[in-house]
Amino acid sequence: MDRTRLVVVGGDAAGMSAASQARRRRGPDELEIVAFERGRHTSYSACGLPYLAGGLVDDWRRLVARTPEEHAKRGIEVRTRHEVEAIDLGGRRVRVRDLNRGVVTDEAWDVLVVATGAEPIRPPIPGVDLPGVFGLAALQDGIDLRAAIDEKPEAAVVVGGGYIGLEAAEALVNRGVPTTLVDRGEHVMSTLDPDMSARVDDAVRELGVELLLAEPAEAVEGDRNGVKAVRTVARTIPADLVVLGIGTRPRVALAEAAGIPLGETGAIVVNERQRTPVDGVWAAGDCVEARHLVSNRPVNYHLGTIANKQGRIAGINIGGGYATFPGVLGTAVTRVCGVEVARTGLAAAELAPLGLEHEADTTESTTRAGYFPGAGTIAVKVLAERRSGRLLGGQIVGREGAAKRIDVLATALWNRMILHDMVNLDLSYAPPFSPVWDPVLIAVRRLSEKVEKRLGEHW
Amino acid sequence: MDRTRLVVVGGDAAGMSAASQARRRRGPDELEIVAFERGRHTSYSACGLPYLAGGLVDDWRRLVARTPEEHAKRGIEVRTRHEVEAIDLGGRRVRVRDLNRGVVTDEAWDVLVVATGAEPIRPPIPGVDLPGVFGLAALQDGIDLRAAIDEKPEAAVVVGGGYIGLEAAEALVNRGVPTTLVDRGEHVMSTLDPDMSARVDDAVRELGVELLLAEPAEAVEGDRNGVKAVRTVARTIPADLVVLGIGTRPRVALAEAAGIPLGETGAIVVNERQRTPVDGVWAAGDCVEARHLVSNRPVNYHLGTIANKQGRIAGINIGGGYATFPGVLGTAVTRVCGVEVARTGLAAAELAPLGLEHEADTTESTTRAGYFPGAGTIAVKVLAERRSGRLLGGQIVGREGAAKRIDVLATALWNRMILHDMVNLDLSYAPPFSPVWDPVLIAVRRLSEKVEKRLGEHW
Repeated sequence: MDRTRLVVVGGDAAGMSAASQARRRRGPDELEIVAFERGRHTSYSACGLPYLAGGLVDDWRRLVARTPEEHAKRGIEVRTRHEVEAIDLGGRRVRVRDLNRGVVTDEAWDVLVVATGAEPIRPPIPGVDLPGVFGLAALQDGIDLRAAIDEKPEAAVVVGGGYIGLEAAEALVNRGVPTTLVDRGEHVMSTLDPDMSARVDDAVRELGVELLLAEPAEAVEGDRNGVKAVRTVARTIPADLVVLGIGTRPRVALAEAAGIPLGETGAIVVNERQRTPVDGVWAAGDCVEARHLVSNRPVNYHLGTIANKQGRIAGINIGGGYATFPGVLGTAVTRVCGVEVARTGLAAAELAPLGLEHEADTTESTTRAGYFPGAGTIAVKVLAERRSGRLLGGQIVGREGAAKRIDVLATALWNRMILHDMVNLDLSYAPPFSPVWDPVLIAVRRLSEKVEKRLGEHW
Repeated sequence: MDRTRLVVVGGDAAGMSAASQARRRRGPDELEIVAFERGRHTSYSACGLPYLAGGLVDDWRRLVARTPEEHAKRGIEVRTRHEVEAIDLGGRRVRVRDLNRGVVTDEAWDVLVVATGAEPIRPPIPGVDLPGVFGLAALQDGIDLRAAIDEKPEAAVVVGGGYIGLEAAEALVNRGVPTTLVDRGEHVMSTLDPDMSARVDDAVRELGVELLLAEPAEAVEGDRNGVKAVRTVARTIPADLVVLGIGTRPRVALAEAAGIPLGETGAIVVNERQRTPVDGVWAAGDCVEARHLVSNRPVNYHLGTIANKQGRIAGINIGGGYATFPGVLGTAVTRVCGVEVARTGLAAAELAPLGLEHEADTTESTTRAGYFPGAGTIAVKVLAERRSGRLLGGQIVGREGAAKRIDVLATALWNRMILHDMVNLDLSYAPPFSPVWDPVLIAVRRLSEKVEKRLGEHW
């Protein structure tokens, strides 16, 4: 019997997790695995790029979880600097360009994993392709930005106040570069509700970032020697370094051109086993849709956690096992400008379009017992369905030790818990870790009382 | 109509939570509330006592969440230094001694809350009542121990390596007092499995505590001027200060003498609403039993979290509402000697007597992404039912940021989750907080694979 040939398109989290899991279940005699990666690196931490750029992580090699050589030792061939240019579904081939030699070949597959990830959104304004304008999506971007910061730019502008933009701004300020962050929205971190993201605004300003909100960038000015300024609707900001942090979108041009169906989010459609509607074609990571477990709607998040889990599921199934990916909650966390920020489930603005009436409450508490040295503030916002008290989402902004508590809310959401039951959750307590009522439980208790009072009034 | 009179016996977490909740629902016109507390203080943090003794918290007043005067302002009369000496269930009276004046009076009640808490176990060895021997249960104990440490003892012995004993030993060492800890067990922290508590042993020794295990104390030696040494089965250890940290037991003599039924754990029996079998008599906190949600057996834990929640439930019900306390998981956390220690659910030694066959796995990982500055080790142990993969318990020992993750396992246990489903839990990730697979999920994934492999072999 001939060996099955698995081709993986994309050598980062999702693709290589799929390859690894398939290999664990099927040896090289049964299954050949080849992964094509257009970059130079595999299996690296994209989330670590801002820390690399800022010098908190010194060597880019530390961000690489597994090199092509290490994959090879485990029986997975990775060809870096090889870009897949086309997928032939009928003929089960991919056309691959060797970016070093310029040679194009056709490669056959029996099973295909599409793990092309996401690509940074480049705003449709003049000048975004000038030298000195950086994205921060691939490892090489981080290496390049680091090198640019090492040359001591005089002033930087970050466009966009999402995770990446904020982390980049912090990195720049920490390296002594005067930095302005411009965002079109009323607040940074638009995945939070405004009352919570306003707290992040404050922290960004406290750190010394010049924050310009509700002020879209209109152009990057400069010439072939580099950028000179960013022009917004209100002013021109001199800058010799620009970082784009306005988000990413699924990299699906390849799949779309091949005829692999995309869903309403614009990402690839997969079933619970991570298979696309095309026989033999699997997909995982930033380029695919997942089901949101609160809204039951398809969503497309770009998070390493999801990519790793989906890749694992795809690989188990390809290897002959049976596994399903139940969905996501959009749980995310970051530490920027001295505050920790986390969210899970749905935010207020996401609830109204779903027809979900909700109650919400934001509680301020402390990260440790109030009397314990190092106690910092923590704000916990919880949102619940008005008629049932079912938890719908949570957000946390606070000082050290605050944000990882979001995982309790995520686990409660996963189990569709109602506030009334959550109040009694037996969470841990000791003075170095929380008040005797954990801040999450204080928030839940307060909202539970609010919801029950309201129900009492109506019944 | 006459006012109802609520008498609360014990003015700390459970009793005052009950009083506060009852007051929120019933005004002074309907309900009179009087609490009797034999000590001088109300509503203080017993968990903060080691930090007070060690000087990390400077002023004992900071440990008091609410003073008698503050309770009075909310319409709750607290008589401190008043000890309830007897409860008359038939006549609905309590006999109360004013400890300052020595006067004994009878006080009527319509509704009674028994919240007498726990008392330190004094080992049945000679000399435990000598001056210079300290327990650490009431606020006054902490104040007294602090004063004794301020006098710069030459050497201290701590008897017992549970939470309180370890925290006391750390406080002593941090204050420069050469300290020996003796414990009869093979390891400190006997609520963990031995492989996990051995990690705590190491941390205790690293901090400079002389740790003598499997070495029961046989006597405290000294005279009326103070202690001079602790004698164990193996040696005599000179010491001019001794701290007893061998645990606490429910303070139930008063309830028992009155005829309020005790359960098999030796603590007061209550129903889910926190009512005892005696009409009009409620009880909450360290002196009552709760149902363990994994074993479904009655247990008696002494934890501030449980006391506060149970007091709240009792108070809501007394105030005319309806609330139930579903049970406990024994979730607990501490930070001792540079490591964080946490547990929830059942430990291996608790499973066998219940007839629960289990699989367990201990995983070492890091508290942050491996490349991120400040990443420390974290060991996560998870235990699951062999035939079903249902989570039964979890334990964590690790460096800063490790322990609060226990709350995810507690929330999963609360929802009776199985490992196979937990693997996909959408927990948060960013490099300052965890590897891309949270250490808890790594542990769960590994154990899940182990359980499924075993099931596969048998079927």
